[in-house]
Amino acid sequence: MKNLLVAQSGGPTTAINATLAGVLHGARQSGKVGTVYGGLHGIQGILQQKLVNLSAAFATEEELQRLKVTPAAILGSCRYKLPTPQADEAVYKAIVEILQANNIGVFVYIGGNDSMDTVAKLSAYFKQNKVDIAVMGAPKTIDNDLCETDHTPGFGSAAKYVAFTFAELVRDCHVYPVASVTVVEVMGRDAGWLTASAALANVADKGPDFICLPEHPFNEEAFLQKLAAPLQQHRPVVVAVSEGIKTATGAYVGEQSANATDAFGHKQLAGVGQYLEKRIKERYGCKVRSVQLNLMQRCAAHLASATDLNEAFELGSTAALAGAQGTTGQMACIQRLSNTPYTVSYQTTPVEKVANQVKHVPKEWITPDGSGVTQEMIDYLLPLVQGHVEPVMENGLPSYAPLFY
Amino acid sequence: MKNLLVAQSGGPTTAINATLAGVLHGARQSGKVGTVYGGLHGIQGILQQKLVNLSAAFATEEELQRLKVTPAAILGSCRYKLPTPQADEAVYKAIVEILQANNIGVFVYIGGNDSMDTVAKLSAYFKQNKVDIAVMGAPKTIDNDLCETDHTPGFGSAAKYVAFTFAELVRDCHVYPVASVTVVEVMGRDAGWLTASAALANVADKGPDFICLPEHPFNEEAFLQKLAAPLQQHRPVVVAVSEGIKTATGAYVGEQSANATDAFGHKQLAGVGQYLEKRIKERYGCKVRSVQLNLMQRCAAHLASATDLNEAFELGSTAALAGAQGTTGQMACIQRLSNTPYTVSYQTTPVEKVANQVKHVPKEWITPDGSGVTQEMIDYLLPLVQGHVEPVMENGLPSYAPLFY
Repeated sequence: MKNLLVAQSGGPTTAINATLAGVLHGARQSGKVGTVYGGLHGIQGILQQKLVNLSAAFATEEELQRLKVTPAAILGSCRYKLPTPQADEAVYKAIVEILQANNIGVFVYIGGNDSMDTVAKLSAYFKQNKVDIAVMGAPKTIDNDLCETDHTPGFGSAAKYVAFTFAELVRDCHVYPVASVTVVEVMGRDAGWLTASAALANVADKGPDFICLPEHPFNEEAFLQKLAAPLQQHRPVVVAVSEGIKTATGAYVGEQSANATDAFGHKQLAGVGQYLEKRIKERYGCKVRSVQLNLMQRCAAHLASATDLNEAFELGSTAALAGAQGTTGQMACIQRLSNTPYTVSYQTTPVEKVANQVKHVPKEWITPDGSGVTQEMIDYLLPLVQGHVEPVMENGLPSYAPLFY
Repeated sequence: MKNLLVAQSGGPTTAINATLAGVLHGARQSGKVGTVYGGLHGIQGILQQKLVNLSAAFATEEELQRLKVTPAAILGSCRYKLPTPQADEAVYKAIVEILQANNIGVFVYIGGNDSMDTVAKLSAYFKQNKVDIAVMGAPKTIDNDLCETDHTPGFGSAAKYVAFTFAELVRDCHVYPVASVTVVEVMGRDAGWLTASAALANVADKGPDFICLPEHPFNEEAFLQKLAAPLQQHRPVVVAVSEGIKTATGAYVGEQSANATDAFGHKQLAGVGQYLEKRIKERYGCKVRSVQLNLMQRCAAHLASATDLNEAFELGSTAALAGAQGTTGQMACIQRLSNTPYTVSYQTTPVEKVANQVKHVPKEWITPDGSGVTQEMIDYLLPLVQGHVEPVMENGLPSYAPLFY
């Protein structure tokens, strides 16, 4: 019986270890996999032969459950762009050698669109060179920008963090009866899905006043003018901005502040939040703050969505099962069957359709003036943030699965 | 039967509405209070006669429970320094008139050390002028810097947020096997209690490598040198810094960056996190990030400590009961009786001992080199973050008590 190798790549998320747990589960269910090995730090660590025995480390259901609720990538990650075989075939030969030396029959790579590029290249090379190793992708990204899947694992938990945090921030920002603006910067260079999730704060309470996504060209003057009315009424304003909002000419808004220099004459690359903070202060002279949700939004395991972790697990399992049955060059994906009740099915899709592509927010889900999202967006998002996950705790504090690196 | 007036002041917290709920509960328990009124936006709104009927708004146990788990100040807040009677007696006369017009027999003010200054001044003035209104304080601050109470409501929940968030951030920062530094800035201008809570992340998993508090003079050169060893070993480093760390001469470290100018020639007041980010980058040229926990740390109701909310409730109740029995010029406070099992008693203390004072972290609870905290600190903090609070939800999203303003 051949073994399975799994690795994690790209930015960590709350759900990427749930997918890993799913891979372990799927490999066991298949009845066709011997040992499951984990490659440390993605393809980069595999090239350094850094393999660990995951079957032994997560032998019990309890250990698997703890892995499922552990944030960030337990195997470590990398940002490594696999060259084409034409550019550097030696890398491919090295990978084949290491995989064959460990009797690997299936390789599952968990990651975003860059990682799916790796899956596409490796599976094509293996096919061409008659290397009998199935290569499968399992999706992961808080950005939710992968094509061919209704949504991506990690997104639902990040969206839940954004929704809850905006509900709390709006309450916090409203306590003083003075004109003020709070600009909250959310991750997403190219796609606005996560920033759009701020609108969920409106479902049961009160959310941000304006939501600005990268998909809608940002008109600074129009934006500043929209603040005038609430500020004249001495109302606090809360704005959700995606880090990737762009002007009509396609320049990142945050980059406009790149001319700023510090005391040492160095260029300062402030984010879009800090940039807008300055512009609003100049225009209105009122109290202005910028807040970055920063790394917290992608690793807040304490606020994970149960729906997200369960789906992440199922996708890992789907990828492992399909690989064990000989499927290669495919990514596990989610098809949404219905919103009420929320039902999905798990499929696989050719990885070339996913690699290096970006799924943007549809223009119809953004309000015409670009300062909010439609009910369709809310209906899409709402099922993804459902369900409380109880973290594994010790003395009332989080106790995660042990690290391998 | 006379009525009770309650108001909230200073920065919002996760627990300040739990104290308000406790005031309502205590007033009912006393059998000596008619209607409970809330003053909007602290003493400032009271002076504008902005009073609402809380007894009617929170008539049921269910409504009271929802209020208890709602973050930020439901009555709104203010930052208003009451002048002395010598400077402006008219303000006092106006307050007396408004309170008497509403048949108020007890006034409870929920806030930090500035608010306790208001309680001290008002109660002294009322005594001197034979105004038969009891004035009581109920403590509140995430900074935990009030004297005469073992700890303050709002702190336990903020500390829990800091502990969980550091556990998650450390996991996130470790996924790439490269030298990197993440500087996480935590609130606390004068006292390091909240920053010290980052050490709790170590209890069940892994916390920050260095913890820098305002109570220990910050030696920049020594700090930079401590980073050398882990960075040479290509290890990610996570640092918790209090926003208020100071040099040996007492200058805020963050203020040293005040010479920076932006593209418009304006001074930039970057925080200490951004300042250290630049200095570390200059010295080591490695990947450096700064993260601010910002407003999230004071309003994260989704991660509230049950211990904190229950104690906040009891302190509100204690203040209301004592006021109804004629006690005046006192603040409700917590006395810790034992750590294991954790037991406390609720008392009152003369408010003059609290007003305008700051309770610092004891020097003995900081490691001699100023880069961490001792086991005594962990033992002190651990009971305060215990217990999960289920938020009131609607469609899986937080549904808070309605706002009055």
